[in-house]
Amino acid sequence: MMRTRPLKVALLGCGVVGSEVARIMTTHADDLAARIGAPVELAGVAVRRPDRVREGIAPELVTTDATALVKRGDIDVVVEVIGGIEPARSLITTAFEHGASVVSANKALLAQDGAALHAVAEQYGKDLYYEAAVAGAIPLIRPVRESLAGDKINRVMGIVNGTTNFILDKMDSTGAGYQEALDEATALGYAEADPTADVEGFDAAAKAAILAGIAFHSRVGLDDVYREGMTEVTAADFASAKEMGCTIKLLAICERAEDGQSVTARVHPAMIPLSHPLASVRGAYNAVFVESDAAGQLMFYGPGAGGSPTASAVLGDLVAVCRNRIGGATGPGESAYAALPVSPMGDVVTRYHISLDVADKPGVLAQVATVFAEHGVSIDTVRQSGKDGEASLVVVTHRASDAALTGTVEALRKLDTVRGVASIMRVEGE
Amino acid sequence: MMRTRPLKVALLGCGVVGSEVARIMTTHADDLAARIGAPVELAGVAVRRPDRVREGIAPELVTTDATALVKRGDIDVVVEVIGGIEPARSLITTAFEHGASVVSANKALLAQDGAALHAVAEQYGKDLYYEAAVAGAIPLIRPVRESLAGDKINRVMGIVNGTTNFILDKMDSTGAGYQEALDEATALGYAEADPTADVEGFDAAAKAAILAGIAFHSRVGLDDVYREGMTEVTAADFASAKEMGCTIKLLAICERAEDGQSVTARVHPAMIPLSHPLASVRGAYNAVFVESDAAGQLMFYGPGAGGSPTASAVLGDLVAVCRNRIGGATGPGESAYAALPVSPMGDVVTRYHISLDVADKPGVLAQVATVFAEHGVSIDTVRQSGKDGEASLVVVTHRASDAALTGTVEALRKLDTVRGVASIMRVEGE
Repeated sequence: MMRTRPLKVALLGCGVVGSEVARIMTTHADDLAARIGAPVELAGVAVRRPDRVREGIAPELVTTDATALVKRGDIDVVVEVIGGIEPARSLITTAFEHGASVVSANKALLAQDGAALHAVAEQYGKDLYYEAAVAGAIPLIRPVRESLAGDKINRVMGIVNGTTNFILDKMDSTGAGYQEALDEATALGYAEADPTADVEGFDAAAKAAILAGIAFHSRVGLDDVYREGMTEVTAADFASAKEMGCTIKLLAICERAEDGQSVTARVHPAMIPLSHPLASVRGAYNAVFVESDAAGQLMFYGPGAGGSPTASAVLGDLVAVCRNRIGGATGPGESAYAALPVSPMGDVVTRYHISLDVADKPGVLAQVATVFAEHGVSIDTVRQSGKDGEASLVVVTHRASDAALTGTVEALRKLDTVRGVASIMRVEGE
Repeated sequence: MMRTRPLKVALLGCGVVGSEVARIMTTHADDLAARIGAPVELAGVAVRRPDRVREGIAPELVTTDATALVKRGDIDVVVEVIGGIEPARSLITTAFEHGASVVSANKALLAQDGAALHAVAEQYGKDLYYEAAVAGAIPLIRPVRESLAGDKINRVMGIVNGTTNFILDKMDSTGAGYQEALDEATALGYAEADPTADVEGFDAAAKAAILAGIAFHSRVGLDDVYREGMTEVTAADFASAKEMGCTIKLLAICERAEDGQSVTARVHPAMIPLSHPLASVRGAYNAVFVESDAAGQLMFYGPGAGGSPTASAVLGDLVAVCRNRIGGATGPGESAYAALPVSPMGDVVTRYHISLDVADKPGVLAQVATVFAEHGVSIDTVRQSGKDGEASLVVVTHRASDAALTGTVEALRKLDTVRGVASIMRVEGE
């Protein structure tokens, strides 16, 4: 049963993702119409540089006045692939006010203002979908929001940034240092000229905030996410990881506390065992591991970025929103009923791998072990090696709180026999 | 905004999955109500043996008259976890006729009668959801139907049967033979007393039919799926696979032909490279690899069976169907608009690994190579080894059609110098 009035789509932004969305809307028009139950047409494309030639897009559709486009009143769905906070936020709000639903790929905006945007969407009875905002083409938002809607999620742990995974994979496989691996990533186009958002974990933190909110039916803001980049990971860390049967990944981890009364969200490099499914995620791929009460351990794997993969996610949302519109329904909105508080990083409980440079003399191990014990941090293994009066101690702990570990390290630094703390790395996935 | 009239659920079947669905509906009632927007209550449970004690289920809800239960007229959603064709099919049809939507975990029924059941659901304006029918807890039906609705899927390749993956993984890791590994699977509860449905590939074939239908928006019946079990896989095959840098998995493969005008669906053991993400799927886990035009390569991984994981999938569907009901909408129905024909196995193009027992004398390789050439099958590598007048030839081909390969093997068998064809195994995932 096909209705004949086409659904009208306004595209905001026509860069790598937007041009691919427009291309697929044209080349796959028949398939989209069949799957939606109505034809869907590109009604306008808002761009910053109107003079650039855009293959396959009729010039009369192109405008620089995005606000006028979303205010037209005949737009069914606004697809926002501009990125950044403004003008995207105002345009999305205006779109809802003028009767459109919205599909967005904007992780920064959703992480910062998701709750407010959902509220406007609900006020106007419209949809806000954003599968493409987290892990590109990988279906993740929909499975977590819908497929696992009858389950209780306890942990979401993932590689959600392809640039940093490419760099870490390169360091792991070639023994390269951070700078060398970053240079290669830049040369190959995997890293931007200014890689800060990726390597300092800002990008992953935005995704962690979105995922934690959805997984735990609570509001988790960007400021709630503990963030540590991966610029200080060294070749020596990878060597240590290998000795542990591990590799190192930049992980976004969202966890429900054991008592179920609070959640945490964090981004940092961590050692994970080679036997863990996330350990074999290579290159710029992303993967997210989800643990729930009933389903157990699930993993979702795929390309986390790029024009085509992101466009695939945008178009999947577009089909869903169009179907909802035809059926007079809306999809799931924000679900924050659980309202669990976000605990600080000090409450996070995990294991640690600590490398210490120490004096090579009797009694050092006893001193160090005493400091751990005084802070309630239980030691799993210790490995001591040394020569010429210098030695190193590698301590792997049992599970301990971040606060206890921080206290331990502060006390260790004050010991005369400890020359320095070479590295502290969390150990996850066991 | 919570409505107060509860949605009523009738549960058909209360075995391993059904009892877990009932348990979670009780223990997570508040969460389900918050996520649905209305409380959901168990209105009746149809069982075969009413005398068995069912913890947490009020005895007055239990009935042996499933038909009367689905005919009550006040049931919002019928959850069918009986399995098999009848009485499940009649009960589902009756449920639609009496105003209920349906959530089913029944792969055999969906594979055989999915189109007819979808037609009845559509006739009555009701939902038919069945995420649990394929790969247990792994969100797969929803991502393929909805997340990838704007993309073009070219291949779905997966490990969709946990029993056979457990057996093959055991053979791979221990060098055990098929029977020994099966015995262990049976002892551990991974294989049923009669393992035919699993080891002969019937279970995987039903899932392949369902997946192919959804992925290609076409009808693919059980009879359209080529099926080869894994009972003849030997320790020698695993040794051959290792030499190739491969392992052996029982794969369900649904492919669009290169010209896009037809599809194929098949289940058989195959060698896949150790570097392929499916190669590292261990034990009874399932994983499905999806390749599409825009998204590229995606993989979905998790437990493919078991009471709790299957219940998770059922409850996810239950939440979705309840939401639809409150919103007066229905989810996506059958999508078979593409109506692509299913090509026979002979048209499938892949690579082959063939082990031949041959006479150890000059000219044998030339004879064998000539037979391949005459049938248009190009050889990638040949490895010859032998002693005492007996020799073996291992031939790995380039991509060739199944028909061409079959013709080649028939001709090889007629050669005096070929004593026997020890094994033929497809090579996938390259």
